[in-house]
Amino acid sequence: MGDKRKQLHLNLFLMSTGHHEASWRHPNSAPERAVDVNYYVKLARTAERGKLDSLFLADSYGLPPTIKYKVLQGLEPFTLLSALAMATERIGLIGTASTTYNEPFHVARKFASLDLISGGRAGWNIVTSTGNTTAFNFRDEELPDHSDRYRRAEEFLQVVKSLWDSWEDEALVIDKQSGIYADPDKIKPISHKGDYYAVRGPLNLPRTPQGHPLLVQAGASETGKEFAAMAAEAVFTAQNNIEGGRRFYSDLKSRLAKYGRTPEEACILPGFCPIIGDTEAEAREKEQALHELTQIDYGLYRLSNLFGINLAGYPLDGPLPYADLPQTEQINSQKGRHQMFIEMARTEGLTIRQLMMRTASSRGHFSLAGTPVQIADAMERWFAEGAADGFNLMPPYLPDGLDDFVDKVVPELQNRGLFREEYTGGTLREHYGRPLPSRALLSAQLKA
Amino acid sequence: MGDKRKQLHLNLFLMSTGHHEASWRHPNSAPERAVDVNYYVKLARTAERGKLDSLFLADSYGLPPTIKYKVLQGLEPFTLLSALAMATERIGLIGTASTTYNEPFHVARKFASLDLISGGRAGWNIVTSTGNTTAFNFRDEELPDHSDRYRRAEEFLQVVKSLWDSWEDEALVIDKQSGIYADPDKIKPISHKGDYYAVRGPLNLPRTPQGHPLLVQAGASETGKEFAAMAAEAVFTAQNNIEGGRRFYSDLKSRLAKYGRTPEEACILPGFCPIIGDTEAEAREKEQALHELTQIDYGLYRLSNLFGINLAGYPLDGPLPYADLPQTEQINSQKGRHQMFIEMARTEGLTIRQLMMRTASSRGHFSLAGTPVQIADAMERWFAEGAADGFNLMPPYLPDGLDDFVDKVVPELQNRGLFREEYTGGTLREHYGRPLPSRALLSAQLKA
Repeated sequence: MGDKRKQLHLNLFLMSTGHHEASWRHPNSAPERAVDVNYYVKLARTAERGKLDSLFLADSYGLPPTIKYKVLQGLEPFTLLSALAMATERIGLIGTASTTYNEPFHVARKFASLDLISGGRAGWNIVTSTGNTTAFNFRDEELPDHSDRYRRAEEFLQVVKSLWDSWEDEALVIDKQSGIYADPDKIKPISHKGDYYAVRGPLNLPRTPQGHPLLVQAGASETGKEFAAMAAEAVFTAQNNIEGGRRFYSDLKSRLAKYGRTPEEACILPGFCPIIGDTEAEAREKEQALHELTQIDYGLYRLSNLFGINLAGYPLDGPLPYADLPQTEQINSQKGRHQMFIEMARTEGLTIRQLMMRTASSRGHFSLAGTPVQIADAMERWFAEGAADGFNLMPPYLPDGLDDFVDKVVPELQNRGLFREEYTGGTLREHYGRPLPSRALLSAQLKA
Repeated sequence: MGDKRKQLHLNLFLMSTGHHEASWRHPNSAPERAVDVNYYVKLARTAERGKLDSLFLADSYGLPPTIKYKVLQGLEPFTLLSALAMATERIGLIGTASTTYNEPFHVARKFASLDLISGGRAGWNIVTSTGNTTAFNFRDEELPDHSDRYRRAEEFLQVVKSLWDSWEDEALVIDKQSGIYADPDKIKPISHKGDYYAVRGPLNLPRTPQGHPLLVQAGASETGKEFAAMAAEAVFTAQNNIEGGRRFYSDLKSRLAKYGRTPEEACILPGFCPIIGDTEAEAREKEQALHELTQIDYGLYRLSNLFGINLAGYPLDGPLPYADLPQTEQINSQKGRHQMFIEMARTEGLTIRQLMMRTASSRGHFSLAGTPVQIADAMERWFAEGAADGFNLMPPYLPDGLDDFVDKVVPELQNRGLFREEYTGGTLREHYGRPLPSRALLSAQLKA
């Protein structure tokens, strides 16, 4: 398995023109290509040139009401990832699918198919959906409440895993002579009947290269963190600074034992938005240029939506109206983000406008403008000081922000021995150092 | 638009090792590659070399209980077609999605994404699902009855079309200077609330190259034919002989006027399984070799399933037990196929074993063993005599059956002026001579 020394894991969070909300207005960005597959192919190949573990597509099932001011997020994940599988060879491909607005059979099957198509590079970012913009595209009912969504997610995941396990490794016989194609004793129904789902199975695809695509999750609420501790093999998290990162890291790692898991079994990847310049001054200029493209109307909408209160009536250069804000317990989604933004504004004494700018580059994720060495220093510090096992890389604008990272920061990390120089495995699980799930593992051991 | 003379339309019905139920046992077939994307890439490129209009993937959401004896159908359609879009340039890509076990928002979006990824080559084969093997993978309930499924399909299709129409062509502004990305007045909710679905919209993708992916359907019951007449732009049909083909053709074409459509607006493509030899004797030998690989257990299951009665207790070399068979009206799916098989057995006086063999190559579709000239003669006759606008090509085994067709039959059809020598359009709609749907058409006219 190559280098045994612990190294960073890096995932590219791929989103149309980049993560700064004004990225589409940047002179070098290409918002007209937000639904052009060849644009994503080029980015994916750059990430693969940088030996990144994986790329990841977020997703939601509705059009944000801010479409006037902000670029589309991109294409549909299953179709896009499958296309990218054909245009890349090694990089992992993580797609988002909601457990609230999908059928487990379809999700199990599409990820299995993607895992087969990509030769074992599929990963599933499990979300429970947020907001009624999505909800009203599926039924005439608001988003189910937070705890209901997570109960549903737990059962959904159980069904999906059972479907992935419904074929034994040796089920395919394929004996032309005798006419036996498969051994039906090695392909079993799952006969699931739970509170939310009834799924008989088995899946109509054989066991895939990874057995189970890598499981990824990003919940930040108490329930979300418990879910991650139980199920996730990679955890994305939004942390504004290293102290927050350390708190989250030790909090989440400490929850794993309860589920019979060791700390190594969940890899924690805080979001990171690096604004890279050859000098610090150049990096700051880049950051400033993006801030100047930021639109107040969009920022107000974004913050109002998060806080559950219309901020348009409050002075932009005054503080958040703390007394008027709903409590975190009262809101139904993005609870972790809600809490973090209030804490950030309070601690740093930010006005509404300042909070808007501070969070414009990456919605509250850790953001840093600096030279490649400064960027690598920060990453090394988070890694060394127990705040991260790697990062969910969120370039502020594309393609430049990714090119700079791959060409300037990756070599710096490699020089420090913090990041791979070549891929050592072929599957996403191998990139993250995660074994195949037990059934496949057992069979691999028997073969060895 | 190139050649104005009426020509055949040809679709490749792509299914793992081919359409003969014993194809996987053929010495040249590769059943171990049934879930290998590169296998399908090669076949798709062969079809494209033959200038075929499109390729098509059937689908079902369950594992047939006959997996012991018959190869898997293949990968999941959206992921596979998206991969094939990257490996081909011109051929249309038609995927099956059920209106009974999907959400219209997801289906509209995935086809829109595929249409964007493929540059306007997506088509949707609309099915309502058959059988409880599928049903029990989604809920603890049997398949809804036939008429309920079609009522649901009608509403589902209306929702999907409205979502595809929810963005006007000119909705994207993308003005970096002013910060206006899209014109919200040109992106409208659909606010659908019907008997089965509530979908607010709009879609979260802009209008695609084709506006609407091509609509395909294959219902053979009365309700199915009405649905096709209302909605389908290409109609697949299973017809055992030219008389049946003519009846179906004039029947379906005559139903179009009721929906304000001309006969040209629905292209009728009977399934066709050509077994091609350089001599007639060679073709017959190939057919015989496949028949000898056919397994009685599988054939009995297939016919029992269709007829709704266990045939295992009846003498194989005796007639169908007509008196014991449920009537077509009593069965819930594949009504057209049911009727056709009974008629075929009665008219030709077939035993159970003979019916099994007669339908093993293509499940009752027109099948012919002959030389390339004989194959082309038959196709020309169906075309000239009002039984077909083209064919849904079902090679008995792959890759040979497709190679033979492309290398030997296509040139013969081209020599007769019956088939294109080069693609003249870039989209699936152009291949089938179907205009863009009105909103896109209007805008194209304004631009011209």
